[in-house]
Amino acid sequence: MKNNYDPRPIGIFDSGVGGLTTARCIYKLLPAENIIYVGDTAHIPYGSKSPERVYSLSKYIVNFLLTKNVKMVVVACNTASSVALDKLQEDFPQLPIIGVILPAVKLALQTTRNKRIGVIGTEGTIKSNTYKKFLLSFDKGVSVFQRPCPLLVPIVEEGLINHKITYEILKYYLTSLVNKNIDTLILGCTHYPLLKKAIQKVVSRRITLIDSAKAVSLEVKEYLNSHHSENKKSSQGKHLYYVTDAPEKFKQLARLFLGKGEKIGKVEKICLDDYILTPIGKVKDKY
Amino acid sequence: MKNNYDPRPIGIFDSGVGGLTTARCIYKLLPAENIIYVGDTAHIPYGSKSPERVYSLSKYIVNFLLTKNVKMVVVACNTASSVALDKLQEDFPQLPIIGVILPAVKLALQTTRNKRIGVIGTEGTIKSNTYKKFLLSFDKGVSVFQRPCPLLVPIVEEGLINHKITYEILKYYLTSLVNKNIDTLILGCTHYPLLKKAIQKVVSRRITLIDSAKAVSLEVKEYLNSHHSENKKSSQGKHLYYVTDAPEKFKQLARLFLGKGEKIGKVEKICLDDYILTPIGKVKDKY
Repeated sequence: MKNNYDPRPIGIFDSGVGGLTTARCIYKLLPAENIIYVGDTAHIPYGSKSPERVYSLSKYIVNFLLTKNVKMVVVACNTASSVALDKLQEDFPQLPIIGVILPAVKLALQTTRNKRIGVIGTEGTIKSNTYKKFLLSFDKGVSVFQRPCPLLVPIVEEGLINHKITYEILKYYLTSLVNKNIDTLILGCTHYPLLKKAIQKVVSRRITLIDSAKAVSLEVKEYLNSHHSENKKSSQGKHLYYVTDAPEKFKQLARLFLGKGEKIGKVEKICLDDYILTPIGKVKDKY
Repeated sequence: MKNNYDPRPIGIFDSGVGGLTTARCIYKLLPAENIIYVGDTAHIPYGSKSPERVYSLSKYIVNFLLTKNVKMVVVACNTASSVALDKLQEDFPQLPIIGVILPAVKLALQTTRNKRIGVIGTEGTIKSNTYKKFLLSFDKGVSVFQRPCPLLVPIVEEGLINHKITYEILKYYLTSLVNKNIDTLILGCTHYPLLKKAIQKVVSRRITLIDSAKAVSLEVKEYLNSHHSENKKSSQGKHLYYVTDAPEKFKQLARLFLGKGEKIGKVEKICLDDYILTPIGKVKDKY
């Protein structure tokens, strides 16, 4: 790449707004990068869907992102990273695709001292056992304790970040994990970073929280550096947003996830069905 | 119909398991009827989707039900009844299609004494204002107070029917309605009948709860009677279940909704896309 300069955008996708926690970390760490964000709001939530369904939806999204000439894809959704990443990497061998699981797993293993690690996430993520499998594949000596927390996503989307109800629910979910004497807890869902303060209050202070959004953004930076494919332009990158349903609702929730620093322009609605059957790499681009 | 005898099934659909509260009431009231239940689990929840999306999904389901030769359709989903029923009735003029809104509205108006009525439901149902519009169209003198309660569906699906958390959430949602001095509260979501006892404890005893599942089952019975199209066979009707994703999860949750009395056999997975483009009434039947 001429002058190590690759202005092509990075694609990030999630089942909805949740992946914006990852986008936010990437914006901060790599401010010059152009980003295309896709929220598959017509099919949210992925957490309760079958692996086959999540894989097929994810594939359509990657097809769409290819029409936008992305240089890499970040699967910001934990469920899709759990159940679809391997297949996507096989389907698109020329495209670097990074999920949110592996970076968090590596960070957790570097963090733990007593080798007792907790994982919380949606039903789909936890049932897939992906975090557990990855953790054990790197270190057979760790003990992994998992807990699906299906109420936390709606709690965040209700804006109940610091409410009595939230603390009650967190106690309900986390007490059994704390009792297992874990010293590290992986927040295995895009929404959970917004509850970080509340979670830290409920679990003891000696438990370190692993935020997969942060971990993956570091991984993206490392990948771009080592492949000399950063966007070296000094100006601020462009951030574009696409959803498959309800753009207004997305925009409203996005404010909660991105904070006041990021202004969201137009959120464009797309139909994934347009990206199903056309051959990979030759996907029609209506936009 | 010969001997007033119409063994064709009744179709019932919802975005997921929730409509089983309606199915359960219909099983009880009309035990001889054959029922085809469709849960669109690939696209749940409808509550947060756009009206266009909910309408198009609902239309595919009615197309599917037509391949099963149904004599009528019950839209057991509040969101679909709110935003898609009119259009469905236009699209399928030969087919009686009953939603859950109108029966509940009528019952609420018969019940209220002080003409102050509360409505709770998903975001989609409440935003559509359908309950309010219907209530006012029958009686301009009523005051209607609405509240979306997006946490209640996941609370039910977590099985937290009688938990401390549930009471906290119900207080959070319902206190403002109680303070409006309502005497009647419409449970405008299929899942809420499972929380009836908890809701009754949280609101004062003098508030009457209107269960739309019960109301619609009475309407179905009345329609069949007045059109002489009951299934007069004395044996127990057959109940068949179709979902668009994750049949095992449906089966598991269905037990919560149907109680021990109902045995669920095979839950078959269908793909709605097969029922999109073929002309109405000539939908292909792969089954």
